[in-house]
Amino acid sequence: MLIVMHHKAGQKQVDAVVRAVEAMGLQAAPIPGSERTAIGVLGNKGYVDDSTIRDLPGVQEVIHVSKPYKLVSRDFHPRNSIVKVGNIEIGAGRRPVVAAGPCAVEGEEHILRTAKGVKAAGADLLRGGAFKPRTGPHTFQGLKEEGLKYLAAAGKAVGLPIVTEVMSPDNVGLVAEHADLLQVGARNMQNFDLLRELGRIRKPVLLKRGMSATIEEFLAAAEYILTEGNSQVILCERGIRTFETATRNTLDLAVVPLIAELSHLPVMVDPSHATGKRSLVPPMAKAALVAGAHGILVEVHPEPEKALSDGPQSLTFQGFEKLMKEIGGLSSFLGY
Amino acid sequence: MLIVMHHKAGQKQVDAVVRAVEAMGLQAAPIPGSERTAIGVLGNKGYVDDSTIRDLPGVQEVIHVSKPYKLVSRDFHPRNSIVKVGNIEIGAGRRPVVAAGPCAVEGEEHILRTAKGVKAAGADLLRGGAFKPRTGPHTFQGLKEEGLKYLAAAGKAVGLPIVTEVMSPDNVGLVAEHADLLQVGARNMQNFDLLRELGRIRKPVLLKRGMSATIEEFLAAAEYILTEGNSQVILCERGIRTFETATRNTLDLAVVPLIAELSHLPVMVDPSHATGKRSLVPPMAKAALVAGAHGILVEVHPEPEKALSDGPQSLTFQGFEKLMKEIGGLSSFLGY
Amino acid sequence: MLIVMHHKAGQKQVDAVVRAVEAMGLQAAPIPGSERTAIGVLGNKGYVDDSTIRDLPGVQEVIHVSKPYKLVSRDFHPRNSIVKVGNIEIGAGRRPVVAAGPCAVEGEEHILRTAKGVKAAGADLLRGGAFKPRTGPHTFQGLKEEGLKYLAAAGKAVGLPIVTEVMSPDNVGLVAEHADLLQVGARNMQNFDLLRELGRIRKPVLLKRGMSATIEEFLAAAEYILTEGNSQVILCERGIRTFETATRNTLDLAVVPLIAELSHLPVMVDPSHATGKRSLVPPMAKAALVAGAHGILVEVHPEPEKALSDGPQSLTFQGFEKLMKEIGGLSSFLGY
Amino acid sequence: MLIVMHHKAGQKQVDAVVRAVEAMGLQAAPIPGSERTAIGVLGNKGYVDDSTIRDLPGVQEVIHVSKPYKLVSRDFHPRNSIVKVGNIEIGAGRRPVVAAGPCAVEGEEHILRTAKGVKAAGADLLRGGAFKPRTGPHTFQGLKEEGLKYLAAAGKAVGLPIVTEVMSPDNVGLVAEHADLLQVGARNMQNFDLLRELGRIRKPVLLKRGMSATIEEFLAAAEYILTEGNSQVILCERGIRTFETATRNTLDLAVVPLIAELSHLPVMVDPSHATGKRSLVPPMAKAALVAGAHGILVEVHPEPEKALSDGPQSLTFQGFEKLMKEIGGLSSFLGY
Repeated sequence: MLIVMHHKAGQKQVDAVVRAVEAMGLQAAPIPGSERTAIGVLGNKGYVDDSTIRDLPGVQEVIHVSKPYKLVSRDFHPRNSIVKVGNIEIGAGRRPVVAAGPCAVEGEEHILRTAKGVKAAGADLLRGGAFKPRTGPHTFQGLKEEGLKYLAAAGKAVGLPIVTEVMSPDNVGLVAEHADLLQVGARNMQNFDLLRELGRIRKPVLLKRGMSATIEEFLAAAEYILTEGNSQVILCERGIRTFETATRNTLDLAVVPLIAELSHLPVMVDPSHATGKRSLVPPMAKAALVAGAHGILVEVHPEPEKALSDGPQSLTFQGFEKLMKEIGGLSSFLGY
Repeated sequence: MLIVMHHKAGQKQVDAVVRAVEAMGLQAAPIPGSERTAIGVLGNKGYVDDSTIRDLPGVQEVIHVSKPYKLVSRDFHPRNSIVKVGNIEIGAGRRPVVAAGPCAVEGEEHILRTAKGVKAAGADLLRGGAFKPRTGPHTFQGLKEEGLKYLAAAGKAVGLPIVTEVMSPDNVGLVAEHADLLQVGARNMQNFDLLRELGRIRKPVLLKRGMSATIEEFLAAAEYILTEGNSQVILCERGIRTFETATRNTLDLAVVPLIAELSHLPVMVDPSHATGKRSLVPPMAKAALVAGAHGILVEVHPEPEKALSDGPQSLTFQGFEKLMKEIGGLSSFLGY
Repeated sequence: MLIVMHHKAGQKQVDAVVRAVEAMGLQAAPIPGSERTAIGVLGNKGYVDDSTIRDLPGVQEVIHVSKPYKLVSRDFHPRNSIVKVGNIEIGAGRRPVVAAGPCAVEGEEHILRTAKGVKAAGADLLRGGAFKPRTGPHTFQGLKEEGLKYLAAAGKAVGLPIVTEVMSPDNVGLVAEHADLLQVGARNMQNFDLLRELGRIRKPVLLKRGMSATIEEFLAAAEYILTEGNSQVILCERGIRTFETATRNTLDLAVVPLIAELSHLPVMVDPSHATGKRSLVPPMAKAALVAGAHGILVEVHPEPEKALSDGPQSLTFQGFEKLMKEIGGLSSFLGY
Repeated sequence: MLIVMHHKAGQKQVDAVVRAVEAMGLQAAPIPGSERTAIGVLGNKGYVDDSTIRDLPGVQEVIHVSKPYKLVSRDFHPRNSIVKVGNIEIGAGRRPVVAAGPCAVEGEEHILRTAKGVKAAGADLLRGGAFKPRTGPHTFQGLKEEGLKYLAAAGKAVGLPIVTEVMSPDNVGLVAEHADLLQVGARNMQNFDLLRELGRIRKPVLLKRGMSATIEEFLAAAEYILTEGNSQVILCERGIRTFETATRNTLDLAVVPLIAELSHLPVMVDPSHATGKRSLVPPMAKAALVAGAHGILVEVHPEPEKALSDGPQSLTFQGFEKLMKEIGGLSSFLGY
């Protein structure tokens, strides 16, 4: 429920509404705007009887939000949010960022070499997986804590903030200690305990869309994080599961401008997982930026043919350099 | 990798192979059969060089399994597995079972009343959710531990084992204390830490298929549980996500006989979540049994129109009694 | 638009409404019921201003139908329709029928041999394709007119009515000359010119659901046929296209009872195309009947391993006989 | 089947192979290349015994093509095809084109006014539907022949070639008389009689991808047209059907570079039908061009709120002008 106050309503009237909401056993979150204040009501289970509130002085309108998210919504927070990762700002009006690196951290040497390669080509963040969610238990599951440390060291060595996945609530503390941006993978988009735990830390979160998640479910998943107090969330489209098997997933690029309409949070795109095919990554990376993405995640591997996972979708250093130059050619169009 | 021994191979030869496998840093799981022994090899990451094994005495064949599951596979374990929940046996050759109850435990009275109702009509298990995964954080999330206790008490009162969902590794111990069968919901099918934790307990697990999980991914998820040592797993088809919105999900009933070909584990079907529509539950429940399901899960609520969740797909007591009678009419066809 | 008359309204009042509708340039289709008459209004493009009709004597209610079908709807035609194919009646309250035969008619001998085989096992109709829609132009496209004649001759020889596909408006006349039931394939479900042409003949039509057609689109496609005057239409679920590749399509069995709620037309199920796998056909055939299907279509081939198309999903004579016996075991449950 | 000749093979050897192929009852299509000649073999139903050919002088390799298309494939025809519509060339290396206009031709005035508007903003082609495929029979089905004439007149008046849909083989002649580019809609992608008929004319064809067609099926559908002799085919991605309902369809943009790898035919994109939402059309139009599309189709309507169909996805003149300017800003990036 959203309570919209008259533009002339004073602080006293806002306070009175907040008290009335709390008297109903609900939380009130005042959202001051340039013209008027709105008050978000949280904690209600289903429909709330608004009769005691509608008639309070200064109340202009009571909107019953049927969507499963509020804090994430642009209605609640009309201005674009900027998420800061290390020294980098991500969001509308900022230069789009490029996170690059291998699917999995395979060793100390391996990640350092990759870090140098992507840094040299102009990447803004270093990506790499230490905890790897794999379909079956009998395949490489990542180097875990060891990999995390190698990744952090490589990031520091080349001066790039790092982004890496966290798979379980128990590991949030550990990963947050090392990572600059914590990634939730597609399989965990509705791992609600993990989301809640990430809502309690003070590091930014990159939330990937689930394989068959609607946009409404995607935004509602982000709502879990914001509700716990962490509003530093970046959404990431990475392809959805459809009948088409010619590509690994189907990149749903139209959601980039759609999310920008519905939410104030930044959006990034992962063309590597979306397509699963090296040759399709550069065109989709560029298309994502032109569609309005605030950044992209690209898999890069020194020797893709030897990669422990996702080799076929990883760019070589050379391929990544070429892509970065092409993206440079879009800079004036993109306005930075 | 699966090592098939000659039917004349003796225990000494089997032991030698096991030692050779372990010398490679892998685990060996001997699977004695009526005619010959097979030895499952676990722990390998990708392809294993089998040259040192292939030539050992008594080895007939080395099969490189490309599927992401082994223990779950019928190749490894040709005989049907029977899973015991309380005193009830579930699986091939047993009378199919019916688990019934509300989507969510709403209170002490509510669940006891429902338990009596479904018991009277002939249910074999009592189902009910205490921890509820919900799309957004602002809706009813279940009564949690309190609900779990109410459910367990109601089950005891009427003499029915209970099945309920567990959502996080941290809660496995708590839920296992009360529940006879622990359910993993569709959203958590690939919550690998949860699966591993469930692999370490001694209670049976009901694993629901993810909304967009292929059968291969479904079986591979079960493999996580078996790999940790718990082979008391029941698979549950509950509808997949497709373009069709006339039903809540699309019940993929053909996977019931398909899973029976690929795996030795029992399969149940949840026609309530699959269809989302009360009137479609009875025909799909009966169809599921005829297709070979070893049991069904049906949502029943004393007053569906007042249910805190899933009212439109819940049967009334009367509707459930009618369904149970119709199922009785299939008993001779189903051979029990 | 649907005009519902008072139960006391007389023929004169009905006639007056019909004239008023026609004066608006629309068609009126009176639907006499046991209690009251309803008048369907056809031919409107979008919303119709009902002010001139609402106030006419005898009019009880004017319902603006937003669904893209009317004649097909149970609201318009509450009683179940029975479709007659040869001497066989198909629909609610009748013994469910079995159509069997090869995917394609491969020759005179071949189809006669198959006809004898399926007749001996108890089939009610002989199916077989003469005009074959194939993904690419370089594969066997059917024996066409020749195949049609072989099929008709085989049907006559064993005394079974035949069902076969028609792919183009130009061929409707030819196919109608030979076939007892004309099939529209999944790819042509929205070939509107073909549907209209089939609406003008006096033979029954079997309309298969499109690969990605919603139930609403499916019923709207049938509406094209009924609108032209042919109400002898049987709907056929044959699996939809989803992300799952373990089966050829995903059999959406829940639509069988759903269609029975929405429409008065009979429904059949094709478990062969739905699953694409011989071993899954019998369980799905039986499940379909228990779910309420008024008949099934099963592919049977004397030598499936030599079939020019769809061999892997065709039953042998032996497999078909076994299935027919199992279906017999359901007869008392199905109430015939 | 594709027969690859030695690079030294002479014309006599090629001729001998052609004769051998024809002696098998198949067609041979020699494809001269800069280094060597290949000979495409058409007309085979399934596998062909190549023993009589493999050993002929000059034959280097016989490739059995398992894909359901050949003429469409880049293997057969490595160089990009350019399709000429009026005076406009469409394909790789040419400036991408913009086709604009209303979903349906609604009247003489209406289409002329729209033609002037889109011409003024810089459109290259005028689009508009005269024959409209609609889900149900009771909605506006287009002005048909009358609409076709209005469209042709409007195109002539402003000097733009026109593109319009043809729905049935019977109408191919009529539409070809008026249109510069004949469109096959998504619902008719596998209307094989229509495709064959279009293969016999001498006008270019725009083939839209079916709602649930794989890329393989899409290319195989084009193969029907090329096989009959018309190689002037443009492929058009217009969104596929998935579980996501926030957009009308899911624009599968990754197929643009994928098709460019697999086929020599030009590719266009229709962001209007793909998204179904006016605000998403411009970002997707630009993304499509950056992804490599050789043109786009955009719905433009003088008064979208009054459109007889597809109003919500139509741009106003003002919106279209803005888009054309933005596309202009990409020209140096796109290299024209």
